[in-house]
Amino acid sequence: MHSFDALAQQFAAYFNRPHFPQSPPSLYEPAAYILKLGGKRVRPVLCLMGNELFEEIHADAWSAATAVELFHNFTLIHDDIMDKAPLRRGKPTVHGLYGDSTALLAGDVVFVVAYEYLSKLSATNLPKILALFNKTAKEVCEGQQLDMDFEKETAVDFDAYINMITLKTSVVLAASLKMGAMIGGASERNQNLLYEFGKKLGLAFQVQDDYLDAFGDPKKFGKQVGGDIMVNKKTFLLLHTQQVASAAQKAELESLMAGNAPDKVEKVKALYKACGADGWAKELSQQWLTEALQHLDDIAVLSRRKEHLHNLATQLVQREF
Amino acid sequence: MHSFDALAQQFAAYFNRPHFPQSPPSLYEPAAYILKLGGKRVRPVLCLMGNELFEEIHADAWSAATAVELFHNFTLIHDDIMDKAPLRRGKPTVHGLYGDSTALLAGDVVFVVAYEYLSKLSATNLPKILALFNKTAKEVCEGQQLDMDFEKETAVDFDAYINMITLKTSVVLAASLKMGAMIGGASERNQNLLYEFGKKLGLAFQVQDDYLDAFGDPKKFGKQVGGDIMVNKKTFLLLHTQQVASAAQKAELESLMAGNAPDKVEKVKALYKACGADGWAKELSQQWLTEALQHLDDIAVLSRRKEHLHNLATQLVQREF
Repeated sequence: MHSFDALAQQFAAYFNRPHFPQSPPSLYEPAAYILKLGGKRVRPVLCLMGNELFEEIHADAWSAATAVELFHNFTLIHDDIMDKAPLRRGKPTVHGLYGDSTALLAGDVVFVVAYEYLSKLSATNLPKILALFNKTAKEVCEGQQLDMDFEKETAVDFDAYINMITLKTSVVLAASLKMGAMIGGASERNQNLLYEFGKKLGLAFQVQDDYLDAFGDPKKFGKQVGGDIMVNKKTFLLLHTQQVASAAQKAELESLMAGNAPDKVEKVKALYKACGADGWAKELSQQWLTEALQHLDDIAVLSRRKEHLHNLATQLVQREF
Repeated sequence: MHSFDALAQQFAAYFNRPHFPQSPPSLYEPAAYILKLGGKRVRPVLCLMGNELFEEIHADAWSAATAVELFHNFTLIHDDIMDKAPLRRGKPTVHGLYGDSTALLAGDVVFVVAYEYLSKLSATNLPKILALFNKTAKEVCEGQQLDMDFEKETAVDFDAYINMITLKTSVVLAASLKMGAMIGGASERNQNLLYEFGKKLGLAFQVQDDYLDAFGDPKKFGKQVGGDIMVNKKTFLLLHTQQVASAAQKAELESLMAGNAPDKVEKVKALYKACGADGWAKELSQQWLTEALQHLDDIAVLSRRKEHLHNLATQLVQREF
């Protein structure tokens, strides 16, 4: 049994290899570039942990974990094109460096290489993992499209928003865990409980992400605080504030969002606080974490095997950076 | 045994079904739109013919054929974004109608649904077909990137150009045939011969395509003659002319390509003729057809089973539209 950090280190060593041919470099250098930007590698490690919850880590789990991480990077490349984002982890985005067309194509090829890793799975695991991978990939596309649809709307229904976040963020975490569980030989009931754990964890994680973007300690957070507020991103905090604000507060919020005043971040944060969005978000995130852990508890496997996942979930949601 | 036309009709009936969920329509309507634009469905029918060359058509061949046609449409959506093409088959392109971001995402999801059809393959066929599909998808990405690279160069090496066309166009035809052959239980030697047949056929097809774009009968061709010339597209005709032209002819060609004079198409065609590119192209296409048919001849299966593929190859290369 390994902790997240131990497996993250093992995965980093495993993943640090050439995933692409050398030629043509005009295609594969941009593809390799995104991987060099790093990341927490949460999804592949969840896949390994999902396997280890039930059984020693099987070679297939490494292939599935690699496929999941490549898939995640494919979505980052394409999302950054759609969002016209200049930076990713403080470095230029792929399209920023190589142009939209090459980035589009580099994203495509990273996606294909993800499927190449899947095609290495043993015959028993391949069909079911491929099916789950496809279902998840479709859902992520749906989530991204809904996110873009919502950007054009002024008010978004809360349930529709949760559905979008589930599709865009949660299902990949859930599917990574479930793939590991499948490879670990878990029963279908245990697989599904782990999937639900991942889904709730994803929601809790996203609320905490939104909270930190506004209220995180700049020294610990690492990113510019208020980034979401500056670009009027629809977050849990904004949605809640829009729901509970008085007419006067709503008017102030709209006028702040219509402009880019130097004190925009401070004033919107003050409105969030006045509407209790900060405390509400902390509670909501804690509630989803509790629900996630309940699913983990229900899995029929020795409690001590669950410790690392339990700790990880708590850390991810209660993190301050 | 069925002719191309008979199988094309059967495939059209089979393919004419909803391939996508209904929701969200903002994602799946654009995805469905490209399929409604139609097409000759050459690739899926080649897959069916590759199967029928050896054995009665297996259910898996329909899934593989559908995956191949969806893959082709995915590449069309993304290529049209990269080429900034306003029209496809005389209708607005997906990105022209729905915007670049949605088209990018719709392309992605069409690609995923192609893999969904592959995941339906029987356990014996899935691993090898998935591996060939992935290899081919990577090569097509490489071909598209090389094509974009070449656009920026004034002179392109002929062998490099053939390599690009092979990757961008031929390998999908070759792989479609080979997938069918795999499903039909062909020996590896026969599979590879059919693959080589498809590769040469793809080259012959592309030369004829370039020829028709310049010298086709406008009444039969259906597209505007000279489209390639107007946008300075690198074609077999242009490359050959650049190779054999005199210094004066080269200068004239360059000056024509630098502008958009009303008589540009006529003058470039005159240069092509003066350099013998028209006759050269006809010969080259015929030579590749001969090589393709040689591979078909070498396949160890009764000659009468090869008739329909033989006829199709001849028709595709000698077509006038």
